[in-house]
Amino acid sequence: MVKVKISEIGGEFALIQRLTERQRMDDPRVIKGVGDDCAVLVRDEESHWLLTTDMMVENDHFSLKWFTPQQIGKKLVECNVSDIVSMGGRPIWGVISMSLPQSTELEFMDDLYEGIYRASSKYGLKIVGGDTTHGSRLVLNLTLIGEVKREKLRCRDMAEPGDIICVTGKLGGSTGGLRLLLKGISGDIDKHVNPVSRKIEEGEAISKYAKAMIDVSDGLGSEVRHICEESGTGAVIFKNNIPLSTSALSAAESLSESAYDYALYGGEDFELVFTISEEDIGPLRMEFKDFTVIGKILEKEKGLHIEDGERLFPIESGFDHFKYEHENT
Amino acid sequence: MVKVKISEIGGEFALIQRLTERQRMDDPRVIKGVGDDCAVLVRDEESHWLLTTDMMVENDHFSLKWFTPQQIGKKLVECNVSDIVSMGGRPIWGVISMSLPQSTELEFMDDLYEGIYRASSKYGLKIVGGDTTHGSRLVLNLTLIGEVKREKLRCRDMAEPGDIICVTGKLGGSTGGLRLLLKGISGDIDKHVNPVSRKIEEGEAISKYAKAMIDVSDGLGSEVRHICEESGTGAVIFKNNIPLSTSALSAAESLSESAYDYALYGGEDFELVFTISEEDIGPLRMEFKDFTVIGKILEKEKGLHIEDGERLFPIESGFDHFKYEHENT
Repeated sequence: MVKVKISEIGGEFALIQRLTERQRMDDPRVIKGVGDDCAVLVRDEESHWLLTTDMMVENDHFSLKWFTPQQIGKKLVECNVSDIVSMGGRPIWGVISMSLPQSTELEFMDDLYEGIYRASSKYGLKIVGGDTTHGSRLVLNLTLIGEVKREKLRCRDMAEPGDIICVTGKLGGSTGGLRLLLKGISGDIDKHVNPVSRKIEEGEAISKYAKAMIDVSDGLGSEVRHICEESGTGAVIFKNNIPLSTSALSAAESLSESAYDYALYGGEDFELVFTISEEDIGPLRMEFKDFTVIGKILEKEKGLHIEDGERLFPIESGFDHFKYEHENT
Repeated sequence: MVKVKISEIGGEFALIQRLTERQRMDDPRVIKGVGDDCAVLVRDEESHWLLTTDMMVENDHFSLKWFTPQQIGKKLVECNVSDIVSMGGRPIWGVISMSLPQSTELEFMDDLYEGIYRASSKYGLKIVGGDTTHGSRLVLNLTLIGEVKREKLRCRDMAEPGDIICVTGKLGGSTGGLRLLLKGISGDIDKHVNPVSRKIEEGEAISKYAKAMIDVSDGLGSEVRHICEESGTGAVIFKNNIPLSTSALSAAESLSESAYDYALYGGEDFELVFTISEEDIGPLRMEFKDFTVIGKILEKEKGLHIEDGERLFPIESGFDHFKYEHENT
């Protein structure tokens, strides 16, 4: 029999799609299963539950060479909270599982949890349980339950042709930091080792006006693609409008790389990408200012492109360019 | 500074205790956080949510040499469902995270999910989300949300002196199978590669009469110890009453080991241990028969012992005797 590698069917998202379709989803309380930042589950007449889970593996999501234990714990919380905030919700409870190498020291665990609790307390999140086991590498998993008012729920599939695409903050800093670390060149690595979710109140403010929303975990290109795939639309991204962080720009200069590539294909910036009707941009700015217009949702037939002022380019699929270099195993 | 290993402070449970105490738990909706099979969270006037998470690591919880992909998927579901059933509840939704080696084949994933979905559907459980990442070893994490009627909730801390301790089914089969596999001796390994949770209806029937309840994931000795620690009691286990499975007995004979040790210190039998008032045993037997009286809850000062008809022995702490042999890493 011919053995098929997962990469050959189109990677992780194609795999999840394939596996998900095999389950009969006949539970009317499941508003949204696999295919968004969180699952959405009926809670009561006014609100839904949000459920999200994320696994962080040593040497894939963090390196013990570069992260303090506190930073690892903090990153675990921030990246999960970002999935809840990106749907207009707020986190409530979390459960953590860990696989620890036998050599793990108590001081490391104390510091890891200091990072977890400090980050959690910013968001009013309580860690209510967990599971500890052993393994050769450090693996951490956090599952969060959050809540969202029904009218504030924003999903990937809510974009419509004509919507303006916006992004909060500045992009590319996390990948810029990672590239510096991988190449052993000094520079500003803060955005890589200290990623932060947007605040709950910011997600809620945007959700009052936005249609589709998603967080930047895999790079702007990948996130706009997700919105388009789920909404059945096309899009154009105005490359020159992409807000680049100063740390991304200086890392790119040091390494003779493109900070736009960090933003588009790097990921882990945990900013929010959202689509909005043009007339709602002004009202949103009255409540929340830190965002930039970076593109437009088009009809599906128009495809998905980047426009640099002169030409149209297709969006490359790859955030794999910028991943940690895996050790051979 | 002196570095302290986790094993030196008393292992996993002492670690969790230490880490948990540092979080201020001021959420009145958290009925029970860390310290039971599930967290218990207020749902409505009639019921609570149950939340549990379990991580399975290759070569720690399963070996690809001995488990089919379907069996791995099934074990992931069964051991998590057992945590819900042991509190008198029923599972509703689950989210899965996975770290996959780069070499993972599509056929493997299809079979793994076949096992996950088949086991889930037995319990009416829907998988509503997940996260896929990469790593050198296969790591799987399942988080389940379940529900329990308030009056059916059974926790570890509900035992009282005078209660009778009972266990469902037969014990030792999983560890017997593992010992045969580790030693390369043929025999009945089914209980190791195909562990099964007790049924939801059985957990509910027992919870009508039981006081404290827990599932056997770490061995009977460890589970009775958990009940005693959480309830503030002592206990005696009548060794000769412990129901041993035929596969545990035959494995122990082949290996010149003790099937009682498999039952007491082996784990992963996923039977239910519960305490009950003596007068309620008869009424419970009318509804559910498959259990055995194996001990009695005592005052705390009496300690925690095993009685073999002649003498009292202290309960050893160790299920570590019977763990997978870790590769050097």
